[in-house]
Amino acid sequence: MSADENPSNTAAAGPAIILVEPQLGENIGMVARAMANFGLAELRLVDPRDGWPSEKARAAASRADHVIDAVKVFDDLASAVADLNFVFATTARERDGFKAVRGPVEAGRALRARHTAGQRTGILFGRERFGLYNDEVGLADEIVTFPVDPAFSSLNIAQAALLMSYEWMKSGLEDETKTNFSSPEMLPATKEQLHGLFAYLEGALEARGYFRPAQKKPKMVDNLRAVLTRAAFAEPELKVLRGIISSLDRFSPAMPRGDGSPGDDPRRLPAAAARIQSPEKEE
Amino acid sequence: MSADENPSNTAAAGPAIILVEPQLGENIGMVARAMANFGLAELRLVDPRDGWPSEKARAAASRADHVIDAVKVFDDLASAVADLNFVFATTARERDGFKAVRGPVEAGRALRARHTAGQRTGILFGRERFGLYNDEVGLADEIVTFPVDPAFSSLNIAQAALLMSYEWMKSGLEDETKTNFSSPEMLPATKEQLHGLFAYLEGALEARGYFRPAQKKPKMVDNLRAVLTRAAFAEPELKVLRGIISSLDRFSPAMPRGDGSPGDDPRRLPAAAARIQSPEKEE
Repeated sequence: MSADENPSNTAAAGPAIILVEPQLGENIGMVARAMANFGLAELRLVDPRDGWPSEKARAAASRADHVIDAVKVFDDLASAVADLNFVFATTARERDGFKAVRGPVEAGRALRARHTAGQRTGILFGRERFGLYNDEVGLADEIVTFPVDPAFSSLNIAQAALLMSYEWMKSGLEDETKTNFSSPEMLPATKEQLHGLFAYLEGALEARGYFRPAQKKPKMVDNLRAVLTRAAFAEPELKVLRGIISSLDRFSPAMPRGDGSPGDDPRRLPAAAARIQSPEKEE
Repeated sequence: MSADENPSNTAAAGPAIILVEPQLGENIGMVARAMANFGLAELRLVDPRDGWPSEKARAAASRADHVIDAVKVFDDLASAVADLNFVFATTARERDGFKAVRGPVEAGRALRARHTAGQRTGILFGRERFGLYNDEVGLADEIVTFPVDPAFSSLNIAQAALLMSYEWMKSGLEDETKTNFSSPEMLPATKEQLHGLFAYLEGALEARGYFRPAQKKPKMVDNLRAVLTRAAFAEPELKVLRGIISSLDRFSPAMPRGDGSPGDDPRRLPAAAARIQSPEKEE
């Protein structure tokens, strides 16, 4: 199959992932799944041991059918990289030779820069059992290797492809602290709102004789306000706290808390009354 | 089993990875393998569906036996996090609530800073099928989520644990471009060495009449030198080039190249004569 059938689509999708003589369909599928999570779509196989198509690969791809359907199979590695301008080879072993060695972050950025400049790029991954031969590494421009623990270096091809796909995605983010959904707006409440809580809480505590002996009250108030200030509560959080205080305050004089504590072991939290995928709206 | 049996070992190893009701032994094993590659060793399971120990987990861990042997099983999540000072929950879904949301890079750095300060930390991963319940996320301090393609968000727990383990390792590197083995020293050769090659090559080309017509020689020399300069060859590379030129030069007058070209298809590279794990030393 020609690699040129769909040049615009494949160029738009970022680097091609090229697996050299992959042995297990499950691994091919897991690579496809990893790619799809991070926006890559062009998977090339060089002489897969168990042939192609592979139902095991499709099952392991977990609905990344668009990647599986677009897989291209090549007889040899030279043909698989023929249309590419720049190729990384992944390897865990140091090789003699002249090739530059990059970490995955640097490699992701280099691929992004070349992609932006209109170059077609690819990343080679070797066989499950022993990786790439030296002459195969020789067909690449540079080497990428992962910062694994030297005492336990055993990434499989699906794990290695996941990390490179992830770094590819990250290299395209304006800000690597940006997430698909964001932290809630947690602007600390105004001091007026905070002081309103203090007044309410201190009034409730005063009513039940918390500030004893009287001469210690100023220090007790200081401590209480310090604790509630350091947390930098936002306005919605203050509302929750006010609701808690209100509830405790309302029930205690008429209906003092009696038996029925949730459990003996203080480390055990009570189970949620009803498990829900989205919490009920706060009243 | 108590989580306090080996506090010094576990604290030294970084965050605990906590899988809540994992269903498949294979996934537990792949998590252990991912952890071991990036220097993590403390795996905790909350109520694993198929019980523990698991031979499937051990097989999938691919010799990360030290992680599998040290697995601790807990009846509930509150017990599994009881000894920790700070906990991240991983989730792909936005949740209502007050928790900060971090990307994996930021989360790795936060875990490293807390670890360095002597805090014990952990990362929660939910069930394969639907992740964590809201009340389980509620037991964590903050949320971490991955920059996946919103159109295909399907990381499994082993993939998510791999990415967090990787970011943990990276957060401890002084320089994220540092690799376990490094690029060869590729100091560009001195100009004297480069000009030596020019003189040698130009002499050989002159001898076989390459510079024709004579008035074009200055421009041809300019171009040739420009090509060989831009590549910024290092001294060992110049030696290889000199060897090539020498070989061509030596054989051509007495033994002109005749039949026996390696192949008809110019895109096909000849197979390496003998595949070797380490290349022979350059003569």
